[in-house]
Amino acid sequence: MSLLRPTALLLACALPCLAIAAPSAPAATLAEVLAASSAADWRRPDPENTLYMDLPGGRVVIELAPQFAPEHVANIRTLAHARYWDGLAIVRVQDNYVAQWGDPEAGNPEHRRAPGEARARLPAEFERDAADSGFRRIDSRDAYAPQVGFVDGFAAARDPARGKVWMAHCYGLVGAGRDNPADSSNGAELYAVIGHAPRHLDRNITPVGRVLSGIEHLSSLPRGPAPMGFYTDPAQRTPIRSLRLASDLPESERLSIEVFRTDTPAFERLVQARRVRHEEWFIDPVGRIELCNVPVPIRLAL
Amino acid sequence: MSLLRPTALLLACALPCLAIAAPSAPAATLAEVLAASSAADWRRPDPENTLYMDLPGGRVVIELAPQFAPEHVANIRTLAHARYWDGLAIVRVQDNYVAQWGDPEAGNPEHRRAPGEARARLPAEFERDAADSGFRRIDSRDAYAPQVGFVDGFAAARDPARGKVWMAHCYGLVGAGRDNPADSSNGAELYAVIGHAPRHLDRNITPVGRVLSGIEHLSSLPRGPAPMGFYTDPAQRTPIRSLRLASDLPESERLSIEVFRTDTPAFERLVQARRVRHEEWFIDPVGRIELCNVPVPIRLAL
Repeated sequence: MSLLRPTALLLACALPCLAIAAPSAPAATLAEVLAASSAADWRRPDPENTLYMDLPGGRVVIELAPQFAPEHVANIRTLAHARYWDGLAIVRVQDNYVAQWGDPEAGNPEHRRAPGEARARLPAEFERDAADSGFRRIDSRDAYAPQVGFVDGFAAARDPARGKVWMAHCYGLVGAGRDNPADSSNGAELYAVIGHAPRHLDRNITPVGRVLSGIEHLSSLPRGPAPMGFYTDPAQRTPIRSLRLASDLPESERLSIEVFRTDTPAFERLVQARRVRHEEWFIDPVGRIELCNVPVPIRLAL
Repeated sequence: MSLLRPTALLLACALPCLAIAAPSAPAATLAEVLAASSAADWRRPDPENTLYMDLPGGRVVIELAPQFAPEHVANIRTLAHARYWDGLAIVRVQDNYVAQWGDPEAGNPEHRRAPGEARARLPAEFERDAADSGFRRIDSRDAYAPQVGFVDGFAAARDPARGKVWMAHCYGLVGAGRDNPADSSNGAELYAVIGHAPRHLDRNITPVGRVLSGIEHLSSLPRGPAPMGFYTDPAQRTPIRSLRLASDLPESERLSIEVFRTDTPAFERLVQARRVRHEEWFIDPVGRIELCNVPVPIRLAL
């Protein structure tokens, strides 16, 4: 009794479904939208844009976003190719905020790992021109931005007055830590959002991608005891076994992950299914949606 | 290098601070607002409304909200007084969603724990009359509700057209799981939000309070492997050592927790400090705030 079932993805919609959508797009649940999807509604991320971070608890898969942060992504590719992160660690886990990884000795010039051919500083890539970004707006009232939507699977926001679009700090976003200067990041120190969307970071730091799968291997780590979740004892840190670009692995070792496209009528139906909740559990069908509550599903291709 | 420092609460505002607020309320950071607070800006939660849930990893402290859910809170008090939860377990942890606790045998009439004098079903307490609720609105554009703000430290939303106010599902909210009928909860099965605010649950389920401290003992638990984060093996569950009302303990064993008041000019300054970010790290001071990104600080009184 009394089990909470708000995400009962496996439940079919009780018929007759509440008819709110137009006849051409019948009311559906998320599960129904996915079940009705075709191969064309899914895409396979470029192996050049896919990172595998292997931790003792499992693999975290990240899709990089060169369309937003080309210089950071290029540097990250250089670092991964040189196996920069292998043997480094998760250095910080702050509850309801971020997990962060990199070189624990980054602040120590004598002991820090050399970044090899990677650049030491990069220009800020906080936002980009909206023109030709492929931004697809969703209808949602947002606290932080005039418009919100998606670009190639990445939650994003747009300011039409300035003609700019930027990645939104939703759960799972991966960004490049920086010091106070805007151009003090180089992609060697990365973080993933593991709490309520810290959207105040939007346009203040360079997002480089998002976690596609395995974020639980970051979000369930022990929180660090020091301010901002830093660990105080090296033994508390989680080691990074390896961090690789999928394109640096033989094809037989790459995962066949597919991501639901966000530029299709099927995705519009998905957003609608999350806006108006037809699952039997809901007393009130809601009728509203927030950007960071829109899932972008993934699946393993056969 | 490259440390992410967006929540550098300990950093003083670089002088001169960006002057946006009126002269009577000088621009400040959250740390400065708290440092300038007086004893009257803090309150001590009623021990009758305070739960201590002791897990192997530490204590979770919850403040109950009888002003929103009087019947659920009364039942929870009855259950805690009878030590109903002692020896039961965290039965479900779903990433970016909820941790849930109760009787693993709840679905088994032969083995489930008897609720004693507690009632088996309660009416839905999804919302309440706004009149006399003490709702304090904050200026924020919200995806889900016409107005948002706080009631006695609890994040809340208000619909002036219907004259109703309800608790908002922000990080740390505690609610009473239910089956499909609106009146199928009794407070024996509780959940805490450990991910991005699932605001679509607002007005669909009965919130009963919020976690004041120790939520990391829930949010860092291993995620359950079954659908919706349920555990598949009893050994995966985290046992509840005890769950007590503070008022059932001798005064010497109660924590002296104080909560920042949300009905004061100091709280208005706190919201403003989170809206306009004066910390040196921020390139863009943001100027906007979302309900669930407003912290309600706590402290241990001396």
